[in-house]
Amino acid sequence: MIYADHAATTPLSPAALDAMTHCLRTHYGNPSSAHRVGADAARLLLRAREEMAGALGCMPRELFFTAGGTEADNQALATAAAWGAAHGRRHFITSAFEHPAVSRMLDTLETQGFCVTRLSPAPHGVLSPQQVEAALREDTCCVSILLANNEIGTIQPLAEISALCRARGVLVHTDAVQAIGHLPVDFAALGVDLLALSAHKFGGPKGAGALCVRRGLLPVSLLRGGGQERGARAGTENLPALVGMAAALTDAVARLSTTIDTVTALRTTLEHGLAALPDTQVLGTSAPRVPGITGCCFAGVERETLLLLLDADGICVSAGSACASGALETSPTLHTLGVPDPLARGFLRFSLGADNTPADVETILASTRAAVARLRKDKP
Amino acid sequence: MIYADHAATTPLSPAALDAMTHCLRTHYGNPSSAHRVGADAARLLLRAREEMAGALGCMPRELFFTAGGTEADNQALATAAAWGAAHGRRHFITSAFEHPAVSRMLDTLETQGFCVTRLSPAPHGVLSPQQVEAALREDTCCVSILLANNEIGTIQPLAEISALCRARGVLVHTDAVQAIGHLPVDFAALGVDLLALSAHKFGGPKGAGALCVRRGLLPVSLLRGGGQERGARAGTENLPALVGMAAALTDAVARLSTTIDTVTALRTTLEHGLAALPDTQVLGTSAPRVPGITGCCFAGVERETLLLLLDADGICVSAGSACASGALETSPTLHTLGVPDPLARGFLRFSLGADNTPADVETILASTRAAVARLRKDKP
Repeated sequence: MIYADHAATTPLSPAALDAMTHCLRTHYGNPSSAHRVGADAARLLLRAREEMAGALGCMPRELFFTAGGTEADNQALATAAAWGAAHGRRHFITSAFEHPAVSRMLDTLETQGFCVTRLSPAPHGVLSPQQVEAALREDTCCVSILLANNEIGTIQPLAEISALCRARGVLVHTDAVQAIGHLPVDFAALGVDLLALSAHKFGGPKGAGALCVRRGLLPVSLLRGGGQERGARAGTENLPALVGMAAALTDAVARLSTTIDTVTALRTTLEHGLAALPDTQVLGTSAPRVPGITGCCFAGVERETLLLLLDADGICVSAGSACASGALETSPTLHTLGVPDPLARGFLRFSLGADNTPADVETILASTRAAVARLRKDKP
Repeated sequence: MIYADHAATTPLSPAALDAMTHCLRTHYGNPSSAHRVGADAARLLLRAREEMAGALGCMPRELFFTAGGTEADNQALATAAAWGAAHGRRHFITSAFEHPAVSRMLDTLETQGFCVTRLSPAPHGVLSPQQVEAALREDTCCVSILLANNEIGTIQPLAEISALCRARGVLVHTDAVQAIGHLPVDFAALGVDLLALSAHKFGGPKGAGALCVRRGLLPVSLLRGGGQERGARAGTENLPALVGMAAALTDAVARLSTTIDTVTALRTTLEHGLAALPDTQVLGTSAPRVPGITGCCFAGVERETLLLLLDADGICVSAGSACASGALETSPTLHTLGVPDPLARGFLRFSLGADNTPADVETILASTRAAVARLRKDKP
């Protein structure tokens, strides 16, 4: 079995597994409890926060834990909306190829009196700071643009966007779910006000995420109840998952340059092989991208069928974002990039990780070549 | 070290630990992915749902997973509010001694055009169905009353309340966080429309909870994004925690009658010993209660100091709900029960579990006796 769907979720890293199983066995306290078992849990929680903050380049007090990336993105936008409403600004700018955790939350805010401008990236998959600048209005409260696209992996120029927004007093949020642990990211240097991440995309556990919130900006709690996370999230802290997330991130950051080299080399081989197939187009190749993600269109092929044929060969890839994989329509990412529908229908995402091998890539290529040829031959 | 704070959180049960570590090691797929690794995860998710539903007496399709009890309570009330708004009903009835996950969510709904009646239970800690009946109005959308109080353990007559509400077309929600795994609870037989639970209160992991929603009532999603949980919750499912929760609940239900006997016997000994101390009052003793919880007031003693003295002896208890343990004011539970402030200031919650022993209880009693005597003697 070859797993090449790391952008959907990653296997738990050994570092995270060790940290979690130790915590699950030993540190069961509620960090809010005043006794020694609670204090022990509170100490581990503090250590996890400091470890994460160190790896992200934010202050520990700028880091708020969540139950995942979706919650972190939702909370970021709710925070920006509350700030905007308090400042008489009700306009958001976003890209047209965000994850549903951002795009659907903005749809909801649109029903609540906010207004949203959705910018289409250029065909190579990158938005320009100039596009953002041209869209800024007097009443813009927040620009929300993902750091790396989840289907084709292109990296967006967030540092430049942040600089021009900051000069105009506009907040910037970035969904960094596909970037953290895969690229060097420093919250302070990037200059954004809000940054969302998800543990299970970098070898951490499911059920854990975080939101970085620039000091001075008050995070809005999505949940009512106990005052955990300094009032930013109600509910007993999920200590084992948070400890696992911190271990996974520390590990990922320590290995980052090696991982980038390894995964980039694997992907280069994969993409050379794919490009050699007739009527096949790898997207975003001229843009900077996260190392593992390859979005590829096979003309004249239905992606669901191709996915099933590869699965039968033991190869796990994706026909787009897992969060939207039940949907039959073609991805908004491809649509906004101007990929014609017949090509978009043959879209697959390969996402490699450091646990893949050159032999995996050869097998993926051989299977894909055979499956695509078979589907094209079968076509009426 | 003696842990007697099971109402704050419980150690992970061996059954849950085994299920989780196996899942963390082996089943890393995203249940939304279309390939075999995803299908494997989806299968485990389905099995966890069926297992939980069987243990709760609901249909699998009536069970919605959340990241904890707070989220489940919030979602229940958001669901009732949406139903109420759609039916022109904007009145809630609740008790005055709910967990903050309910009381603060209702405070928020009050700022959004809903109206809330808060009923005080009788001094023995139980609300009567007649009180609820008298408070019902034409525009009541939902009655939200906890199944067992988290500070004194008293059980509320939810079956009777549900019957009279059902007859009037009013929804009933119950925060069953302190009851599930500690009492026999059957969702269908209880007759409520919404029921919230939290895994880490019955030997399951933190970061997992569930909301039972009676068929025909549409749960409102608190999060926007992917359409997980049939649209009721966005975000990749936290499979290891959900599998752990199902294992813990199955185990707790299988052992339930033994656990009830064991823990009740321990508590009886504890309460006999406490009652023998001068100026000491155990609350709710004349009411039906969950087995493990003892709420006790020691006149002339400050609870924080008593807690610290017991902690120094290695005994972990609580001065109230962990979610409010940072707060200095006396608990709303004690206030609503009419406990005078000087007595309420000396309130401690002991919450025993099946892992406690008769020797633990003797140690708790000896330490408490000594600490209370010392504090009273030191008092100016």
